[in-house]
Amino acid sequence: MKKEELKNVRGTTDYGGKDAMIRNYISKTLQEVFEKYGYSPLETSILCYYDLLTLKYENDNDIVKEIYNVSDQGKRNLALRYDLTVPFAKYIATNRGIKLPYKRFEIGKVFRDGPIKKGRTREFIQCDVDCVGIEGQMIEAELISIFVEGYKQLGIDIIIKYNNRKLMNGIIEACKIDKEKISQVITIIDKFEKLSKQELEFEFNKINIKENQIENLYNYLKMDFNEISNMFKDSQNLNIREGLKELNELNQYIKALNLGGYVKFLSTLARGQEYYTGTVFEVYIADENIKSSIGGGGRYDNMIGDFINDGKKYPAVGISFGLDVIFEILKEKQEFNNNTQVYIIPMNNKTLALKVAEELRNNRINVDVEMSDSKLKKVLNNLDEKNIPIAIILGDNEIKENKIIIKDMKNSFQIYEKIDNYIETIKEMLSIGKFEYKILNPGGNQTALVNRCEYTANQKKLINDMIMKKYPFVEQVGFLSDKEKRLEMAGGEFCLNATRCAVYEYFKSKNEIIELSVSGVNKKIIGRVFDENKVKIKIDISKKLEDLIEIKNDIAYIKIDGILIAIFDEEKSKKYIRSLKEDEEKAKKEIKQFMIDEINTEEKAIGIMFLEKIEDKLKINPVVWVKDIDTVFYETACGSGSLGTAIYNYYKNKVDKTEIIQPSGYSINIELKNKKQYIENAIISGIVEENYFTKANDKMYFL
Amino acid sequence: MKKEELKNVRGTTDYGGKDAMIRNYISKTLQEVFEKYGYSPLETSILCYYDLLTLKYENDNDIVKEIYNVSDQGKRNLALRYDLTVPFAKYIATNRGIKLPYKRFEIGKVFRDGPIKKGRTREFIQCDVDCVGIEGQMIEAELISIFVEGYKQLGIDIIIKYNNRKLMNGIIEACKIDKEKISQVITIIDKFEKLSKQELEFEFNKINIKENQIENLYNYLKMDFNEISNMFKDSQNLNIREGLKELNELNQYIKALNLGGYVKFLSTLARGQEYYTGTVFEVYIADENIKSSIGGGGRYDNMIGDFINDGKKYPAVGISFGLDVIFEILKEKQEFNNNTQVYIIPMNNKTLALKVAEELRNNRINVDVEMSDSKLKKVLNNLDEKNIPIAIILGDNEIKENKIIIKDMKNSFQIYEKIDNYIETIKEMLSIGKFEYKILNPGGNQTALVNRCEYTANQKKLINDMIMKKYPFVEQVGFLSDKEKRLEMAGGEFCLNATRCAVYEYFKSKNEIIELSVSGVNKKIIGRVFDENKVKIKIDISKKLEDLIEIKNDIAYIKIDGILIAIFDEEKSKKYIRSLKEDEEKAKKEIKQFMIDEINTEEKAIGIMFLEKIEDKLKINPVVWVKDIDTVFYETACGSGSLGTAIYNYYKNKVDKTEIIQPSGYSINIELKNKKQYIENAIISGIVEENYFTKANDKMYFL
Repeated sequence: MKKEELKNVRGTTDYGGKDAMIRNYISKTLQEVFEKYGYSPLETSILCYYDLLTLKYENDNDIVKEIYNVSDQGKRNLALRYDLTVPFAKYIATNRGIKLPYKRFEIGKVFRDGPIKKGRTREFIQCDVDCVGIEGQMIEAELISIFVEGYKQLGIDIIIKYNNRKLMNGIIEACKIDKEKISQVITIIDKFEKLSKQELEFEFNKINIKENQIENLYNYLKMDFNEISNMFKDSQNLNIREGLKELNELNQYIKALNLGGYVKFLSTLARGQEYYTGTVFEVYIADENIKSSIGGGGRYDNMIGDFINDGKKYPAVGISFGLDVIFEILKEKQEFNNNTQVYIIPMNNKTLALKVAEELRNNRINVDVEMSDSKLKKVLNNLDEKNIPIAIILGDNEIKENKIIIKDMKNSFQIYEKIDNYIETIKEMLSIGKFEYKILNPGGNQTALVNRCEYTANQKKLINDMIMKKYPFVEQVGFLSDKEKRLEMAGGEFCLNATRCAVYEYFKSKNEIIELSVSGVNKKIIGRVFDENKVKIKIDISKKLEDLIEIKNDIAYIKIDGILIAIFDEEKSKKYIRSLKEDEEKAKKEIKQFMIDEINTEEKAIGIMFLEKIEDKLKINPVVWVKDIDTVFYETACGSGSLGTAIYNYYKNKVDKTEIIQPSGYSINIELKNKKQYIENAIISGIVEENYFTKANDKMYFL
Repeated sequence: MKKEELKNVRGTTDYGGKDAMIRNYISKTLQEVFEKYGYSPLETSILCYYDLLTLKYENDNDIVKEIYNVSDQGKRNLALRYDLTVPFAKYIATNRGIKLPYKRFEIGKVFRDGPIKKGRTREFIQCDVDCVGIEGQMIEAELISIFVEGYKQLGIDIIIKYNNRKLMNGIIEACKIDKEKISQVITIIDKFEKLSKQELEFEFNKINIKENQIENLYNYLKMDFNEISNMFKDSQNLNIREGLKELNELNQYIKALNLGGYVKFLSTLARGQEYYTGTVFEVYIADENIKSSIGGGGRYDNMIGDFINDGKKYPAVGISFGLDVIFEILKEKQEFNNNTQVYIIPMNNKTLALKVAEELRNNRINVDVEMSDSKLKKVLNNLDEKNIPIAIILGDNEIKENKIIIKDMKNSFQIYEKIDNYIETIKEMLSIGKFEYKILNPGGNQTALVNRCEYTANQKKLINDMIMKKYPFVEQVGFLSDKEKRLEMAGGEFCLNATRCAVYEYFKSKNEIIELSVSGVNKKIIGRVFDENKVKIKIDISKKLEDLIEIKNDIAYIKIDGILIAIFDEEKSKKYIRSLKEDEEKAKKEIKQFMIDEINTEEKAIGIMFLEKIEDKLKINPVVWVKDIDTVFYETACGSGSLGTAIYNYYKNKVDKTEIIQPSGYSINIELKNKKQYIENAIISGIVEENYFTKANDKMYFL
């Protein structure tokens, strides 16, 4: 076998993987825009008669040279179309019943056996939008809108340069250049932006344009639209009069449609092809990074009529989007997601894999299934490259328990989900997408913060669960708004330690005193960071001491936002602390029972602080019962409990500054601003540290 | 100019208008399905080296003969691809880094210079889905799912016939036919469904298959899968064993995925091409209207490997959807809507037209704008053909009043809308789509009925307004459910006359006694039609007379569902009837003032019946004030008022059958079933006529 056949024809490319997805995305996006503007699709044949394609050209024309010739069994003289405009004319000629105006788009392959460069191949896709049957500038205005909308949808900022060929012809005539030279002069003017003045003069000299004619031309072509309008306002030259009239009309539409920011009049724009008769456009990317145009078009009122030659008029305008050059731009610019959303990996149960896949597809989710018998590790490695957001692993052990493993590939999480609930979870995961988070340690009671809070309750719960599953030491998850300074806990409750973490994050990114709104409380909380990692926050209290604290059976009860804190003194605490150390689970059960029997409150949570003295300092042992979700925790640190303890200490010992040791060993310092038994506010300070696991993030302060 | 060039090359077609829309829809729909199954797009070049395309074929092969040859300036020997499988193999060969399994789809043009028939041209689009790198039957099962889902999305019921080439080879071997004849035998077997037994024998004889071999073959090929399995369960033939194993595996997947209803094992299915090595499929439409297949495929484990020839294995399976034959089916089957949703016709203000168009497009609505200066009538005529649901006319007079005209082209309505409100109206109109309605005359009080009630309140209001605007004599619009027997009024109120109309419609379509639920009342209402157009309904009342009627200041007050009826006797009515005749507007104002001053009720509506005696019969003059929308009507007929009047007549004159003349001149007859001053129910009968304007509907009883 001859190896060399296994390659592509020079100037042709195959597009697979991400490339093909981008190209599909471009043509789908453009098609939607074209349909938004009332253009209907046309699909013409690629094969044409050679004589049809060359009808309007001399044999030595570049286009004719670049035509691919095709032969068939019937010895016909065929060829491949080199553009979509000739087939458009053919379609109109062969469908005489068609109602004008006819507005069509065509996205299809064309072939030119010409020079190859980046963004220019021999087999390429054109996206053409044309209208035949309309005079006047309304349709030009619409096509400018299509350019603007089309490139906007593709995320490309553009500038559309425009001119009028009647005006250009008129200006050349006004320079008294011979009529038969106009076409050659236009070809030179078209190079104005690319060549130096010297080079241009050389070109003009070649076709015997006189010095003073060149000078005149130069002067005119340097003018902006107002200057040209003024210069020629009384001109009797028909081309100039008509050209200015058309441009004025177009400018009016541009103004009314607020398109001024996207267009720029350019008197030297000619756009090569001889068949243009009025407005011409060329599109460039706004920052002009790419020098060549990425789209263009114009009015060609005579071409179709010349072609059909039935004596009727076929005024036409058209524009073209350069799919290949757009592809080159998007390829470098955007991260493209795989269209596949879920990848199913059966460990053994292939039938179940196919069934799960069908179930997800019935929920409009794109699913691929691993069908090789490769090892899981290899499969997962390959998966990383594929950029699919979610993987499902059907492990034998999990299936026995009616569970599946769901891997959030974007955020590197893994959870187990019941087989009758996984679809909703996957939908939530897909709707969440990638998110950023960070774990902070406010002296124990480690807290994850996510850098957005605009999630639904279900989404928050899922993020909460995924983080806690991955980092079991995380005790709570908070969501920081990226728009305003606001902290929301997954359950909507108030959490003092999470608040301290949020202050830390906002302060580190803004370096100013932070005024924070927090879920579960109405008042704003003020805070800042000092000495690198010490957070100080001020909470407004504004209550009389007697309204804050109540003593019953030797127990002090303090109501903090959303939680009732009960303080057991050192003596009363001893037996509880001992049993917490001996058998934590049993102790927590007894303590919860005590809460149920003895503490009557409507607060959503109850926390008992069992006090200890450690070298003259107060240590708390916080046991907290959250009623709604029925969890009892012996916490590593407790902000609200510390505040309650400080209020107790002030009540009992008239001490307004208290350092409170947490079970984690860290301290929280609390100062109560007070006046005559009236507590104005509390200042809480203590260390907040960044956790090892997420410390290494590039973006340290992620807001 | 040579006229003959202005035509298409034989065997090629241009598709415009509706045809192109259908073709776009097919490829878009299929692409979405392919992506749902994790296949990624591939775009290969159309131009290929001639030697590449012919690599695996002899020169006298049909495929080689049908290749279009292409020449370029570099004198290369090029050709147009004739399928998407060879380019697929080329892509794998030229991209060695590609990870297997590789799953791709390609939708693209291929070229074959062969015979032309319906659904078979020389330049056509193939939609191929292939996977390389997977052995086993899991991928076959997935491809069957793709066939089922793809055709389901396109609205085509299919049956997939399948077989296994190893099994077929084995069966031929079991008939002791020479190995070198297998390929020829398969070609003949492939014609089993098309040729007679005699013709087949003739074919077999041509290649010297013996009589007993043919007989054996016949016997085997007539068997279903179970019979073949039993027959060969102990066979030592490797092909048979392998083939049965694969089929059993595939059947398991088919069962688990509930695909049994879509597939049929067919032992004679071969699918021509020599390169198939395992499962083969062919898709037919379920009712077998079209004899030729509309899709097909199979496993070809050796082809790509032979092609690349690097010693590695490239097991592959693929299927293909026939876009052209699908196009032929859908073209005849479905009504295709224009993608354009709104057509804007500027009478003069073109700039406004472009602005309105942009505004609608920003609301994701597809809009086209009339740009010619044609007369409105001509534009509207052309529009009818285009099948665009909504037209907006920017009339000069309307614009002065900040209004525009919106034409619902589907339902032939026209409304005026304020320029700051039209977008919502258009969205509602688009969401309503086409609806059917009919106008009935229940003895005056003409009522339009729409044949669906699952509309939102806004949609109902819009339909109500459109109908009343077009037919000003319509006094109310009701909505009939097409699922249950239920009438809902646009405003949710109860209306006795509309109820009579609804009974008429349901009875005419079902021809049985109707039990109807009606908005505004809890009890069901029973009714039927007799004597062609007389409607009789029974309403449950179940009240003591004394609880129904109250006399105050010589006026009788009767509470009917949702309305308080006041009866003025003949004497008291005289002056009101006179002033209604003299100056209706003035009289209604005075009557409303009377209601406000004198009648204290919480009912939503009050109706006063001014009684008249006409030749011993009772005539009512109903004036009804609906409080919420503050309308006062002198109605042409009133069902509730007639019922109230009958109750009054029973109370006063102990008459239980009353004929009540309506202002329209029609009568409503009411009979009260009663026992000792207790009214059990009322039977109301009277004529319901079909209105001239909608009488001519094809579907007379439209439920």
